[in-house]
Amino acid sequence: MSRLIWRTPLPDLAVDEERLWSDIMTLAQIGVLPDGGCDRLALTEADAAARSLLRYWFQQAGLNVSVDPIGNVFGRREGTQPGLPPVFVGSHIDTQSPGGKFDGVLGVLAGLECIRTLNRAGIKTRYPIEVVNWTNEEGARFAPGLMGSAVFTGQLDLAAAHASKDPSGVSVAEALTRIRHLGDAPMQRPVDSYFELHIEQGDRLQQAGHRIGVVIGSEFNCFADITCIGENGHAQATPMAQRRNPLAAAAELITAIEAIGHRNAPVGSAGVASLRLWPNNRINIPHRVVFTYSGTHPERAGMASMRHEIGEAAAAIARRTGIRIDVEASPDREAIDFDPALAVLVEEIATQQGFSTMRLRSRAGHDAIRMAPYCPTQMIFVPCKDGISHSEFEDCRSDDVAAGANVLLHALHARANRASDR
Amino acid sequence: MSRLIWRTPLPDLAVDEERLWSDIMTLAQIGVLPDGGCDRLALTEADAAARSLLRYWFQQAGLNVSVDPIGNVFGRREGTQPGLPPVFVGSHIDTQSPGGKFDGVLGVLAGLECIRTLNRAGIKTRYPIEVVNWTNEEGARFAPGLMGSAVFTGQLDLAAAHASKDPSGVSVAEALTRIRHLGDAPMQRPVDSYFELHIEQGDRLQQAGHRIGVVIGSEFNCFADITCIGENGHAQATPMAQRRNPLAAAAELITAIEAIGHRNAPVGSAGVASLRLWPNNRINIPHRVVFTYSGTHPERAGMASMRHEIGEAAAAIARRTGIRIDVEASPDREAIDFDPALAVLVEEIATQQGFSTMRLRSRAGHDAIRMAPYCPTQMIFVPCKDGISHSEFEDCRSDDVAAGANVLLHALHARANRASDR
Repeated sequence: MSRLIWRTPLPDLAVDEERLWSDIMTLAQIGVLPDGGCDRLALTEADAAARSLLRYWFQQAGLNVSVDPIGNVFGRREGTQPGLPPVFVGSHIDTQSPGGKFDGVLGVLAGLECIRTLNRAGIKTRYPIEVVNWTNEEGARFAPGLMGSAVFTGQLDLAAAHASKDPSGVSVAEALTRIRHLGDAPMQRPVDSYFELHIEQGDRLQQAGHRIGVVIGSEFNCFADITCIGENGHAQATPMAQRRNPLAAAAELITAIEAIGHRNAPVGSAGVASLRLWPNNRINIPHRVVFTYSGTHPERAGMASMRHEIGEAAAAIARRTGIRIDVEASPDREAIDFDPALAVLVEEIATQQGFSTMRLRSRAGHDAIRMAPYCPTQMIFVPCKDGISHSEFEDCRSDDVAAGANVLLHALHARANRASDR
Repeated sequence: MSRLIWRTPLPDLAVDEERLWSDIMTLAQIGVLPDGGCDRLALTEADAAARSLLRYWFQQAGLNVSVDPIGNVFGRREGTQPGLPPVFVGSHIDTQSPGGKFDGVLGVLAGLECIRTLNRAGIKTRYPIEVVNWTNEEGARFAPGLMGSAVFTGQLDLAAAHASKDPSGVSVAEALTRIRHLGDAPMQRPVDSYFELHIEQGDRLQQAGHRIGVVIGSEFNCFADITCIGENGHAQATPMAQRRNPLAAAAELITAIEAIGHRNAPVGSAGVASLRLWPNNRINIPHRVVFTYSGTHPERAGMASMRHEIGEAAAAIARRTGIRIDVEASPDREAIDFDPALAVLVEEIATQQGFSTMRLRSRAGHDAIRMAPYCPTQMIFVPCKDGISHSEFEDCRSDDVAAGANVLLHALHARANRASDR
């Protein structure tokens, strides 16, 4: 551990663990699913209800609420020195379908609880602090994900984001209008820094027995759409030798991709979660199957090697089956580095608070990845049970949640109350 | 070849090959697809237009048109002796999506061309002849398939058929009303016999170089829905060792089923043509995958053995992957036998016409399978290119079509003009 460069002046300041846990459980009732998870896709009625509750809580905490044109919600606590840019803290409250109680929600509600804690202690900061709820982080209803932070930072055009449609043809602009979240707060304004507390969505902390993950950046990750083209035919009467079933080829390739993911584990991962086929009729062999694989790897060479293995598997199956297989790879999402000084800050705060830490990279996408090129950015992970997320069975311990929120609190305070730009 | 028991009194009577081919190509323009196939799902606007043209042609040929409550369309040519039940000839003009030009259409339009040929020759028959277009043979929009013939013969309840809904929630009754085909012609009335000319949808005739398939019945066939239950999780961040991806298990099982189909070929067949998964989002491992396999075999024991092999494969994959796999098998569709005397009749006519014949069983479902328990029934197959059907690339030769139609013509005449019940 490096020599301490920062020491909190308020070692006993702590969030209200019960209140934070209660808030998380309360928000989880909006869009609740039978096994306790959530279905709160971006800009649905459930998201609107959750946003309404969040805004009420923001106002209760004395925050000044604003909404920008992509529907990002900001709750602002002024600083003591006019003209300084705000420290942002937040995440998102939209979920997958099905999704869990903690993914995203933790970062927003922990940010809010930090504000309440500062309020209770009568502590002011030089810099303003804004709690942010980013719109459509998940990308499960509207593509792309990380939408709110991408638009705010100018990495995605507002008009393009507004035009994105869900499967039923409703656009983001229409959905924002319907739930009254098409605001006019300025975007691309100066931001001092961004902090995001999140569940790990992996099991490295749990495996290592550490409480605080100091996230130094993201890993390489990739998506590719694979299209298998065969020929229709009667599913019972077409002679086996004449069948050109692209679903059979897709099945072989999915098996190969999952095997490549397992061979590269635990460092890398690869798998398939979505698939469509046409005409999808039990009596008609499909002519077209499209599925998407995704993979992650901490190193560029490892990512390239997995992609190469998958490409070779696809080519071999195409040769053997006569099914045309096209691999359309999106560009790799490059590994992003967060701010090294903020990582040290978080590490030292955690250590002072008595929590063991571990440096790691995020395998999942986060709004912090969009914020990193825009301002000094830092993520904090806490353990989640068995690394499961995007699931009704996503689970966290209240003491881990509180530990993360307390590290966030002191980091926020240190950053927002610093004497000079260091 | 057995001793001839039947000899046509009209050896030179023949259908108009050009007219029949032209009619098939004309009907194929309704719901035409880019590669020349058809999309004419049951009771759609395209089906309505095709029915309208068919009724016009029926009327042009002097047929008396009626429609029953399930939308079956009958074109009746009276016989000379009052009170005798009609000889039915027909098939269906709905298609798969995508579908071909010949599957079903051939049987209806060849039946019509036989009527025109009798008209041109001034030949009357003792028994009436009715050309039938059965509603929703394909089952691609509304389940089950073979719907019109099943309701007509009392094997399927009219109310149940009317209540069947398409994926968008439109019921058969609503669709029939919309296209004005909810008629009141009596069902379950006496029928003397049923003849259906169809493309083989397999390549046994082509392989053997025979022109006329004398269909002695159907094979055993089966469907089963297989459900794989896993657990949601982030598709990139969930550790490989923690993933319980039911799509990975489904992919292995699909590969196994296809292999079982190939091992049992050319006698048996098995494969998978349809699959659904939830939530079907590239970033969320699915919790549920459902797919359907179908298989055929000429023998009960062979069918049971294939089913057993598939069940064993499913159990082994479930054990190894920890994914729950439920196999819900529909009862086997039993092999049906057509009328042996009519098979001999068709065989002898084909031989007299100079066409080589082959006895075989149908692997596909047909309305004739519903008619077989109801009245003496016979199917005639003609070759289709490479055994491909349910496809835009379904193809037939005009001379094969004419050969089939001429065998049908003489069989119809022989049956409808027979002196006594033999």
